[in-house]
Parts: sequence; C-alpha cells; structure tokens
Amino acid sequence: MIDDAQDHGHRPAVIDLLGALAYGELMAFSQLAADAEMAPSQPEKAAVARLAVAEFHHYEAIMDRLTMMGVDPDEAVAPFVEAIDHFHERTKPKDWLEGLVKAYVGDGIAQDFYREIAAYVDEDTQSLVRAVMADMGQADFVVNAVRTAIRADPRVSGRLALWGRRLVGEALTQAQRVGVERDALASLLVGSPDRPGADLAELGRMFARITDEHTRRMDRLGLSS
Amino acid sequence: MIDDAQDHGHRPAVIDLLGALAYGELMAFSQLAADAEMAPSQPEKAAVARLAVAEFHHYEAIMDRLTMMGVDPDEAVAPFVEAIDHFHERTKPKDWLEGLVKAYVGDGIAQDFYREIAAYVDEDTQSLVRAVMADMGQADFVVNAVRTAIRADPRVSGRLALWGRRLVGEALTQAQRVGVERDALASLLVGSPDRPGADLAELGRMFARITDEHTRRMDRLGLSS
Repeated sequence: MIDDAQDHGHRPAVIDLLGALAYGELMAFSQLAADAEMAPSQPEKAAVARLAVAEFHHYEAIMDRLTMMGVDPDEAVAPFVEAIDHFHERTKPKDWLEGLVKAYVGDGIAQDFYREIAAYVDEDTQSLVRAVMADMGQADFVVNAVRTAIRADPRVSGRLALWGRRLVGEALTQAQRVGVERDALASLLVGSPDRPGADLAELGRMFARITDEHTRRMDRLGLSS
Repeated sequence: MIDDAQDHGHRPAVIDLLGALAYGELMAFSQLAADAEMAPSQPEKAAVARLAVAEFHHYEAIMDRLTMMGVDPDEAVAPFVEAIDHFHERTKPKDWLEGLVKAYVGDGIAQDFYREIAAYVDEDTQSLVRAVMADMGQADFVVNAVRTAIRADPRVSGRLALWGRRLVGEALTQAQRVGVERDALASLLVGSPDRPGADLAELGRMFARITDEHTRRMDRLGLSS
C-alpha cells in the first residue's frame, strides 16, 4: 500500500482523479476502436486501432496503480461512469472526420485538464498522469488527415468547427457536474481547510491556459474555434 | 527476407494465409471492442476490451512477419478485406450475449480452420499461426457468462442456438468464397501439380474435426448445435 497520498485528505482526491482518468481511458479505447471502423482504408483503420490499444494500456496502468494503493479499482471508477458515458453518448461522431477531431480536440482538453489537476497531487501520481496523458502520435496523424480533407472539400471546415465547439461545451458540462458531485476532487483545486488549493486568480489562469490550448489545437486543424 | 516458404509455390499461399489471418484479427479487435460497449458493467467491459487488445497485438505480429518476408503487409491483407467485412456485416451481434457467442463460436471456427491449414505450411508460419490462435481466456469467460444468462432466463438458449447456426453458415459461405477466389490458398489444401495436398478423405476428416469442435463449443455453452 502506498501511503504518500494519505496526508491532508489528499488520498480520496487521488483515488477520484485516478478513477475518473481510468474510465476516461477505457472509453477513449472504445471511442477510438469505433472510429477505426469508419476508417477509409485498412492501414488507417490499423493506425487508429493502435491508438485505441495504447489507451487501453493506460487504463490498465491506472487500474494497477489503484490496486497498489490498496483500493478496489472498479469501485474507484464507478462514480465517473455516468458522466463520461454521458459525454460520449452526446458526442457520437457521425463520420471518420468527426471521430478524428474528437480524438484530438476532446482528448486534448481532457489531457490539459488532468495535467492541471495533477499539479496538486504527489509526485508519483503526477508522473503517472503525465505518462498516460502523453501524446501518442495522434496529433500529427489527425492534423494531417483533417487538413487534407479540408483541402479536398473546404466546406467541411464549417461543420467541423461547429463540432469542435460542441465537444468543448459537452466536456465542460460534464466536468462541472463531476466537480459538483465529487467534493474530494474539487477540493484538490479549490483547497480544503487544512490544505490550500489554487486561489481564484490561479483558477482563472488555469481555465485560460486550457482555452488557449484548445484554440491552438483548432488552429492546427485549420478550424476556427 | 525469409526464404523457407518459397519452394513449391508455397510462398503465395503463406502470404494469403497470413494476409487473411491478419485482417481477421484486426476485425476481431473491432468486433470485441464493439462488444465491450454492450457489457453490463465496467469490469466486464474491461475484460472484453482486454481480449480485443490481444487480437490487435496478434494482428501486429502477423503484419511484422509479412514485412519480414519482404511483403507489403497491406497488400497481403487487401484481397481478404471484402469477405471478412461481409461476414461481420452479416453477423452483427444485437446484444451482449450474441457478441459473446460470436466471440467464442465464430472465433473458434476460424481458429480450427487456420490451424488445419497451418498443417500444410512451414514450421515458422505454423508456430506463428498457433501462437496467435491460442485461446486467451475468452473461452472460460464466455462460457460462464452465457451459462449464467441461460440459467437466469432459459428462453435465451433457443435464440442463441439459432445465432450459433447462423454464424457457422455465414463463416462457411465466406470461406468458400475466399477458397474459390484465391487459388494459392486453396492449393495448400488440395495440392498443386508439384506438391501433394490433402486427399479427399483427409479433407472430409478435416471438416468433420471442425464440425465436431463446433458442436463441442455449443455444448459447453449449453446450446444445441
């Protein structure tokens, strides 16, 4: 059992963070596997399937970490199933390009968000979060595919720009819902009586950073944000 | 470049065998990933996703082997995409149980069939085929889940038995189609002027073995075949 996450009510927050992250990765696996089905060719199908498999290995790494912490990993995941499922149900890509934009823009926001939160936890958890959130090459793959599609038919850019905005909106809605329901996770950011969190100014800067990164990703895709 | 598969017109057949097998594994990945989506709980979803990931690693192993043989693996796969896609389109599971039966019964027939064919190729190919066709624990997992479902509601057994027969029928239809279109692959079994294959009696025994194994699997599930 790892004890370094037990001080200052920190442990429940780390469990929540890892539980949410684990289920997010499992659903990213499912989403990418479904995207692979829409691929225009066998090599592209395999490329996206490979990304899905990498997400699943991240899921396993996080579940192992929860087990090492002496936690039932399935219980840690359970509180986040509904919100994450809900996000995916409300953002089902209709075609290959929507799937790619979601993989890049949606996962990008999630990555930024988890990395920001990880700044408030112990170093071991932090490095696990950074490792599972690292870009696995999907950025270049998606950017090339989307830019090529826009060159071939410039009209798709309007539809995909709207899609990108919808993804951000749904992600924020579900993140807020989780924040309201899970005190431990929220207290990581805003602090608790015995442990200071980010002040309001820092929270503002954090959301600004996440928004900036989103805009940068949309730019790279050739889409207005 | 590996040369041991080049004698007696053997090499094109091995390429066909590996190409068909590779795409079969990639589609097994997709199928299992979609099945995982229908899982009644997160741990079951993860268990099936884990099977999907194992299939993808098999796909990669076969693609690597084709590359080592000096073959463009995507070209080796191409002739089999249509038949295998067609099989999956015609056998889309409607629910979690149909998905499980397909994973066990459908993959089981494919495994038996590829293992029988592998008896006619070089040893290296043979051991690769055996390795990627090994049971990864899906048998026990599926048998338990299906038997539990039948105990809870005996009426599902009739529907699943019909589903099992449908899977065999579609698998045979597509296998026959591939056999007719791919001379090299068919010649592995029936032989060619300079290399004897199985005689008619042996072919008969082979199909009897495949049928027996199918019946045994249906029995294990508690379904009539």
